[in-house]
Amino acid sequence: MIKAGIIGSTGYAGQEIVRILLGHKDAEIVWYGSHSYVGEDYSSVYGNMFNIVDAKCLDDNLDELSKQADVIFTATPQGYLAGVLNDEILNNCKVIDLSADFRLKDVDVYEKWYKIEHKAKQYLGEAVYGLCELNRESIKNARLIANPGCYTTTSILSLYPLVREHMIDVDTIVVDAKSGTSGAGRSAKLANLYCEVNESIKAYGVTTHRHTPEIEEQLGYAFLAGAGNVSGKNVEYADADIFSIGQKELEAGNPGGDPVLINFTPHLVPMNRGILATCYAKLSDKYSYDDIKAAYDKYYKDEQFIRVLKKGVMPETRWVEGSNYVDINFVIDERTNRIVVCGALDNMVKGAAGQAVQNMNLIFGLPENEGLLMPPVFP
Amino acid sequence: MIKAGIIGSTGYAGQEIVRILLGHKDAEIVWYGSHSYVGEDYSSVYGNMFNIVDAKCLDDNLDELSKQADVIFTATPQGYLAGVLNDEILNNCKVIDLSADFRLKDVDVYEKWYKIEHKAKQYLGEAVYGLCELNRESIKNARLIANPGCYTTTSILSLYPLVREHMIDVDTIVVDAKSGTSGAGRSAKLANLYCEVNESIKAYGVTTHRHTPEIEEQLGYAFLAGAGNVSGKNVEYADADIFSIGQKELEAGNPGGDPVLINFTPHLVPMNRGILATCYAKLSDKYSYDDIKAAYDKYYKDEQFIRVLKKGVMPETRWVEGSNYVDINFVIDERTNRIVVCGALDNMVKGAAGQAVQNMNLIFGLPENEGLLMPPVFP
Amino acid sequence: MIKAGIIGSTGYAGQEIVRILLGHKDAEIVWYGSHSYVGEDYSSVYGNMFNIVDAKCLDDNLDELSKQADVIFTATPQGYLAGVLNDEILNNCKVIDLSADFRLKDVDVYEKWYKIEHKAKQYLGEAVYGLCELNRESIKNARLIANPGCYTTTSILSLYPLVREHMIDVDTIVVDAKSGTSGAGRSAKLANLYCEVNESIKAYGVTTHRHTPEIEEQLGYAFLAGAGNVSGKNVEYADADIFSIGQKELEAGNPGGDPVLINFTPHLVPMNRGILATCYAKLSDKYSYDDIKAAYDKYYKDEQFIRVLKKGVMPETRWVEGSNYVDINFVIDERTNRIVVCGALDNMVKGAAGQAVQNMNLIFGLPENEGLLMPPVFP
Amino acid sequence: MIKAGIIGSTGYAGQEIVRILLGHKDAEIVWYGSHSYVGEDYSSVYGNMFNIVDAKCLDDNLDELSKQADVIFTATPQGYLAGVLNDEILNNCKVIDLSADFRLKDVDVYEKWYKIEHKAKQYLGEAVYGLCELNRESIKNARLIANPGCYTTTSILSLYPLVREHMIDVDTIVVDAKSGTSGAGRSAKLANLYCEVNESIKAYGVTTHRHTPEIEEQLGYAFLAGAGNVSGKNVEYADADIFSIGQKELEAGNPGGDPVLINFTPHLVPMNRGILATCYAKLSDKYSYDDIKAAYDKYYKDEQFIRVLKKGVMPETRWVEGSNYVDINFVIDERTNRIVVCGALDNMVKGAAGQAVQNMNLIFGLPENEGLLMPPVFP
Repeated sequence: MIKAGIIGSTGYAGQEIVRILLGHKDAEIVWYGSHSYVGEDYSSVYGNMFNIVDAKCLDDNLDELSKQADVIFTATPQGYLAGVLNDEILNNCKVIDLSADFRLKDVDVYEKWYKIEHKAKQYLGEAVYGLCELNRESIKNARLIANPGCYTTTSILSLYPLVREHMIDVDTIVVDAKSGTSGAGRSAKLANLYCEVNESIKAYGVTTHRHTPEIEEQLGYAFLAGAGNVSGKNVEYADADIFSIGQKELEAGNPGGDPVLINFTPHLVPMNRGILATCYAKLSDKYSYDDIKAAYDKYYKDEQFIRVLKKGVMPETRWVEGSNYVDINFVIDERTNRIVVCGALDNMVKGAAGQAVQNMNLIFGLPENEGLLMPPVFP
Repeated sequence: MIKAGIIGSTGYAGQEIVRILLGHKDAEIVWYGSHSYVGEDYSSVYGNMFNIVDAKCLDDNLDELSKQADVIFTATPQGYLAGVLNDEILNNCKVIDLSADFRLKDVDVYEKWYKIEHKAKQYLGEAVYGLCELNRESIKNARLIANPGCYTTTSILSLYPLVREHMIDVDTIVVDAKSGTSGAGRSAKLANLYCEVNESIKAYGVTTHRHTPEIEEQLGYAFLAGAGNVSGKNVEYADADIFSIGQKELEAGNPGGDPVLINFTPHLVPMNRGILATCYAKLSDKYSYDDIKAAYDKYYKDEQFIRVLKKGVMPETRWVEGSNYVDINFVIDERTNRIVVCGALDNMVKGAAGQAVQNMNLIFGLPENEGLLMPPVFP
Repeated sequence: MIKAGIIGSTGYAGQEIVRILLGHKDAEIVWYGSHSYVGEDYSSVYGNMFNIVDAKCLDDNLDELSKQADVIFTATPQGYLAGVLNDEILNNCKVIDLSADFRLKDVDVYEKWYKIEHKAKQYLGEAVYGLCELNRESIKNARLIANPGCYTTTSILSLYPLVREHMIDVDTIVVDAKSGTSGAGRSAKLANLYCEVNESIKAYGVTTHRHTPEIEEQLGYAFLAGAGNVSGKNVEYADADIFSIGQKELEAGNPGGDPVLINFTPHLVPMNRGILATCYAKLSDKYSYDDIKAAYDKYYKDEQFIRVLKKGVMPETRWVEGSNYVDINFVIDERTNRIVVCGALDNMVKGAAGQAVQNMNLIFGLPENEGLLMPPVFP
Repeated sequence: MIKAGIIGSTGYAGQEIVRILLGHKDAEIVWYGSHSYVGEDYSSVYGNMFNIVDAKCLDDNLDELSKQADVIFTATPQGYLAGVLNDEILNNCKVIDLSADFRLKDVDVYEKWYKIEHKAKQYLGEAVYGLCELNRESIKNARLIANPGCYTTTSILSLYPLVREHMIDVDTIVVDAKSGTSGAGRSAKLANLYCEVNESIKAYGVTTHRHTPEIEEQLGYAFLAGAGNVSGKNVEYADADIFSIGQKELEAGNPGGDPVLINFTPHLVPMNRGILATCYAKLSDKYSYDDIKAAYDKYYKDEQFIRVLKKGVMPETRWVEGSNYVDINFVIDERTNRIVVCGALDNMVKGAAGQAVQNMNLIFGLPENEGLLMPPVFP
């Protein structure tokens, strides 16, 4: 039985880890960490857990927790984990970090976009970017996982085959993403009040959202992985695992990989869960539906959690809610020779807690889908 | 492995049975029945089931299905099952009916409230009212289960200990219930369009809703079960199982039991799932919080799916969504000597599909909670 | 041109006064008061007012404001106005208070339910309870208006004819009310976050909500106004204006009038605006639909803002949204001899800002409906 | 007093015309046309109009209506007006068509995208595209107005200054639009049921939505209007009114104007009203914020209903709900040299009924804002 501790278990993502682990055969939760509710019943913070979770919230003592747990999930604000992580912790147990602290290899990019100093640069190299379908082998041997962002997972998985196969011009990518409100977290802010969010939609963080460089870095590695394909760029790698490309680039003093610059615009949608990313790019050549479909099949046809939909059926967030699935499909616009790709997932599951558990399963050699086979809940 | 068939699997309740059975260790679905989608992929009707359910919708052939299945769930319009049920079907397999066809023992009441002739009166006597917590023993031996309505389950479970213990005056009961819109089903009606339901609340079926006599009949049995308590009424029964009281009353030519008349008002709420019933009644005496709490504990303290909340915490539908739990609590108003009881459940789960599976588990001698331990999904 | 000042103009109710007065021919806003946004552009707080309101938020200086304004609206927390009101202010201008400070004549009841000391008891006698349809004549001569609460307006108007005509037993009244979330105000509280409110319904303040005694006091006066009707009670008054009854009772040392005790339960509904009150009471005799309808017509047939709907049509909040209308209708349940009355209004308009402007119109001798004729906005 | 008739008054857009005209000083409604509700009280179809509109629904007799009315609004399905329009009607009265029948000058484009034969091609030439801010002078003299689509108004107004000033590369335009559900109309379709729309977002009509060529045609004219600006294209026109450019192109046998091809993707959002268009394009040069702002000011600074927001403030649909305003703002992304422009409006008002009334005001020489000054309703 894997002993799991959760730092930040009283946030929305933390609570979703709890929900998922409660249905996991091989894991048990030994530590419900919380910044604000230490000493309170967990079920008084989340009434859904009444009579299910009989535990009190504990504090954020990562050192102590690392002695009791086999794996720690940190669902914490940016900068927290980097501020407290040390070798002893990483020797004691695995750490799966849901914050952005170890997602970007390029520390300059991190400090520029997050506007905080990175306090644990020494672990940036080893931290594996935990997008399970792309970095499966590296994850299995990792001590420290940088669990990807919700927008990021949607965007990268939607575009990955096209970028890797050099089927789109990476200078033309636009990702217009829409998220449910749980992505904004559980803190009491006026902007997230019911009456402020309900019956409205808005873009936010236009040109400045922090998931932008994360998408760019990973797509940059994916592009480099496409060696042999037609491209004006000097492509050198052909690893299956894009994390290993990142490491080589890092060693070569080029941490961000080949530069891909995109426009990414997130929007707030009046719904609890779900992300839809609508992605646009110029095709690099004339491609048929079958050409593109073959590229998606090449990478995803054996992936249980990635569902490339039938021709003509576009993703809708209602069909993935509560589950670990990512639904993807595309339409080619022959008039403009652009492709429109939509990806949908549940930001709380595949976009956060579900992927974190999937990473845990990989690390501990469990079936990758253990605890994650809940079908989407509709309506 | 229990073979289950679902007639009406493309309605919301039918689809919820599918979702739950997909996580059930000892059951498999052998028949996805549908009136409107025969021959179509089930997953084209419910996109959430893409790559999960690989089956086509079959027709409503109950006779044929009864030969293939161990249990049939009928999530069908009123009158359907009564129109086709026969001895052979009931000899072949168990039938769990989610419609109202066999819920009311008193056929006159049925025909008055439903305004259709009952075509299978001969099965009314044996059909067990499948409110699992109240009729557990009878359910185990049943061939035909009348799975309770969603409003009904909420209302009865909220009031049952008070009625059975004669702690409230049954002539003063008012149940003001609020339901999510999935209760209205998946048919394309103007009144259920997004823009008609959203940003509004209304009462409907005021004084005429068909769940009224169902609540009354069961509470009538519960009252009769309270022998020995103070009451002006002539109370004769003390069975644990209120279904058996109903049977005795039926044999005595008094199918509806002791008359309880209530006011029941359902309301439509702009949300997908959830029912909240706010119940009011005069206390029959002066009772303290502890007195009342003791009554709830007497009947519910070992019930896994009934959660009587801590003092001062009232049920909210968000805390039960996606789960089989019923949350209940009460407040005594000393000024008026009334009690206010609130009950909350997910109308799709404990109010329909979850309870149906719970009935199946009881009938087949499985752990009662098999497949039903999914924690509520929040947010 | 009437000069109006608004204290608390950056709350939801205050902003709604702004919206309504912008369409008022005879009033202009001279003071946008705010506790939290002093010095900021009003339109930066409420983006809907960009290019419409060109003013900065001012502080809460009521003394100064009273010199500049003909009327002051106070949309402020409980206790604020009572803490600062003085004779000079009331001599300078009219005050319409949207808080509860002057709604209850019985100061003991106020202090018991609001748990704060009342600091301006000397004005309780003259403050007119501004339910326009019931106290029209008194309002015209008032200096200080206690603008009724949103739940209160709905509940009282729904039941008033029945209570005044003694057609219901006032000891049996249950009011089950449902409100949109704007009623919770614009402060940043966790419980009002989008994800906490959305997809859920709950009761709150069960047996303890502060609007309870307000409803009771006014219905008590209404009952007393029913002299000559059959009742066991000693009824003495027959004034048209129930405020004047309250004053006489106050003078007689009986500030709360004849005691009416009800059960009132508010619920939070995932929608922005709207209140629906579902009211239950035993009829005091056998009454037909026509009998009851005649009672409603007697009091409401000339009231522009009260719409008693056609037989069989029950109120829905969507039909009053954005308007000053109250929709009311009833159903008699012959089985239980209870009546079920539903009332619906927009809590921001007739439940707050609209009624406040209606009071202003009455005070200044303007057409009562000036600025209030906006039809409900649907969908 | 202008006599107005509405064909299709029982659709959402038709009802919104009713709502707006009820507050219009110089117009009265003489005909509530309806396809489905002939003979019924209008207020039984729209309960908000109870006691406000005292009229029965009439049939779709356009010939008869044209004799009684000064102006007819047709809020009807595609193809209806083209099927019945004739010279007599146009001689009798003005016609403002909210359908797409006369929006596209290029009949081939119409028939290709709408897949129906155009039955009144003879009026295509004179029909003025009623985007008031762009075609004000032509509208004043029109008999027949093609009232623009909701997505179209948002998209065109968002991009117009940039296209006209040749500040963006028109081959790179992507418009990602999000709409409330009222845009889907009031017909009873499964896809528009509450539970299907709520808690979900989806793209639809990807690469095939009919508003695409409408946006392209108008932006094509706008581009041609930009004579003298830097561009590789052969630009010949410099009219203020882009409609007159279209007419000249039409006469020259080039009805669609200069080809602009865009990607337009609409999305369905779980809210009643509102459209947000997020537009992306490559800047044709290096431009500063001030450069771009000057372009918007050049065209919009005197437009009452177009609000270019303050720097850093992006449009949100909540701030325009219920009003005739369009809110617009932009961000320059220096990294990609793209501009991101957001536009927001209420699809029922500026996107349909409000603009129709604005057109009516222009035609009849009334103040352009008469009846349209209602501030946005929030929350």
